Amino acid sequence: MSKLKELGEFGFIDRIANKVAPGTGIAIGIGDDAAATTQSLGSLTLTSTDMLIEGVHFDLSFCDPFTLGRKSLAVNLSDIAAMGGRPRYFLLSMAIPEKLSVEFLDEFTNGILAMADDFDVTLIGGDTCSSKAGFVISVTVIGEQRPDRIVRRSGAKPGDLIFVSGTLGDSALGLELLRNGVKQGFAVARHLDPTPRVREGLALAADKLPTSMLDISDGLISDLEHILDCSSVGARLDLDCIPLSATFIASHKNTLKKSAELFLSGGEDYELLFTAPPENRQCVYSLFKKIGTPVSVIGEIYMSTGLTIASSKGFEYISAKKGFNHFG
Amino acid sequence: MSKLKELGEFGFIDRIANKVAPGTGIAIGIGDDAAATTQSLGSLTLTSTDMLIEGVHFDLSFCDPFTLGRKSLAVNLSDIAAMGGRPRYFLLSMAIPEKLSVEFLDEFTNGILAMADDFDVTLIGGDTCSSKAGFVISVTVIGEQRPDRIVRRSGAKPGDLIFVSGTLGDSALGLELLRNGVKQGFAVARHLDPTPRVREGLALAADKLPTSMLDISDGLISDLEHILDCSSVGARLDLDCIPLSATFIASHKNTLKKSAELFLSGGEDYELLFTAPPENRQCVYSLFKKIGTPVSVIGEIYMSTGLTIASSKGFEYISAKKGFNHFG
Repeated sequence: MSKLKELGEFGFIDRIANKVAPGTGIAIGIGDDAAATTQSLGSLTLTSTDMLIEGVHFDLSFCDPFTLGRKSLAVNLSDIAAMGGRPRYFLLSMAIPEKLSVEFLDEFTNGILAMADDFDVTLIGGDTCSSKAGFVISVTVIGEQRPDRIVRRSGAKPGDLIFVSGTLGDSALGLELLRNGVKQGFAVARHLDPTPRVREGLALAADKLPTSMLDISDGLISDLEHILDCSSVGARLDLDCIPLSATFIASHKNTLKKSAELFLSGGEDYELLFTAPPENRQCVYSLFKKIGTPVSVIGEIYMSTGLTIASSKGFEYISAKKGFNHFG
Repeated sequence: MSKLKELGEFGFIDRIANKVAPGTGIAIGIGDDAAATTQSLGSLTLTSTDMLIEGVHFDLSFCDPFTLGRKSLAVNLSDIAAMGGRPRYFLLSMAIPEKLSVEFLDEFTNGILAMADDFDVTLIGGDTCSSKAGFVISVTVIGEQRPDRIVRRSGAKPGDLIFVSGTLGDSALGLELLRNGVKQGFAVARHLDPTPRVREGLALAADKLPTSMLDISDGLISDLEHILDCSSVGARLDLDCIPLSATFIASHKNTLKKSAELFLSGGEDYELLFTAPPENRQCVYSLFKKIGTPVSVIGEIYMSTGLTIASSKGFEYISAKKGFNHFG
């Protein structure tokens, strides 16, 4: 096990820089005071940043460094996807405690660069320093999109349908399983290695199908509330229509109330939640079919504010969480 | 003393967003998944990020939150200044330990927004989360500059003069004083509340005077080495020409060796170190005179690699630090 101290800060930066595949549009990459990049003519610059803190966002006993690297970038790419944007570049800052070996950090950077490669984004800079507590990761993603294609949280209109990509609750179930000592499987993978819906967001934006969009990081209810607040509308959510994976259903067949908490408030799904007028429904379906990602209609936007949750079994799913209590 | 818990994450974000003065060029600011901003036609996007960790970069017993806020942005603005760029927007991430009150955080954000106001940059987004250890701050600044005006580290040419803005060593002296219980004064202020040389960097770039430039954060020797490495050249540094403040000279009149360590390797000066051909010397002087910042010639670039340090007293200033030992 090699120590970072032997490599030094600049040795470590060089080690990362040597692994970065050349990207397009980069006038100045790693190694100067700032990076200098181009953007497509007529596009706005999209920027988003997320911090991941050991003990708050991740537990090193649950995840290998490669997968942690992938997730560190994925959660940031997901924010650009939620605007319908194209992510292009990213900055990576790390505060590194002495306990982490060079091998760990190599695997971590291999993971983040593998995710970057999957979505054609390039590392252009960052910062490294020592940490007296846990491992701290901060990623900033820079993307772009034409102003007329950018999808905000504020455009939902009464009559719009509410769509969600993929399935919900898997990540929260995966975290629960990890805490119970389960190390692998579908749900655990969904928690540790989420897929940002960049392709889906870009395709939706290109066809101007959604009226509002975000990615589900805090949980369906809490994030839907953001759309409702920003758009000054209300909604009905059809509990029976929320898409669940076979793994999720099999795990929870006897505890429906607990299940509802996981898929309504569990968070970290990193699926796209968006609204679109009913006439766009078929276009949304065929767009997702082409990409190979499931998509579902889970409710409708109303003029009156507030959120009602409809279910064939009535309103029995009252969560203890704030987002959900609000409508209890 | 109010607790952040009572305010909540979104309440805290709203509290900051309400204090942000509207900036130009911002299509989408705080409150969506990503910010969307314009940039001037023909400019490249400049991005730089720095993390500040409690116990590594700052000590809460040394600094008030307002000044810490100012410095958190200043060190990032300094990186954009070092490229000759115009900073325009910034993202702020904070991992906040429970010990910090809402009042502390209000003062911190007031400080960072005051620095933003000083240099006409606007907060457009960020991330907030809890920290189980210390306070962690991560700032990303987005700026711009025309490609023909951007100043890199790699353009120094044999025969160029080496310039430095302001005075060196004050920050390191200030830190030493703080550690000895001194709470104020010129040197302490230089350490806690540095001024990023944005105006100076922009003016130099506009007139295309420098061949290479960076800001001194690690210390004069260490940062000059970056220019020499990137430009594949060597240099002679004139120890007698290094600009020192009256405060610095008064504090160190009897300990010249210790003094040299502070101004050669002390770091955190956030002054501009740049090279320019001798025929630009007068233009550099008049440009700095107009702004009201001192500037000095402290050496010359050589064709042969390596750094020699000339002094009327010979080569007596051998530091224990790596950057300096290298040439001992």
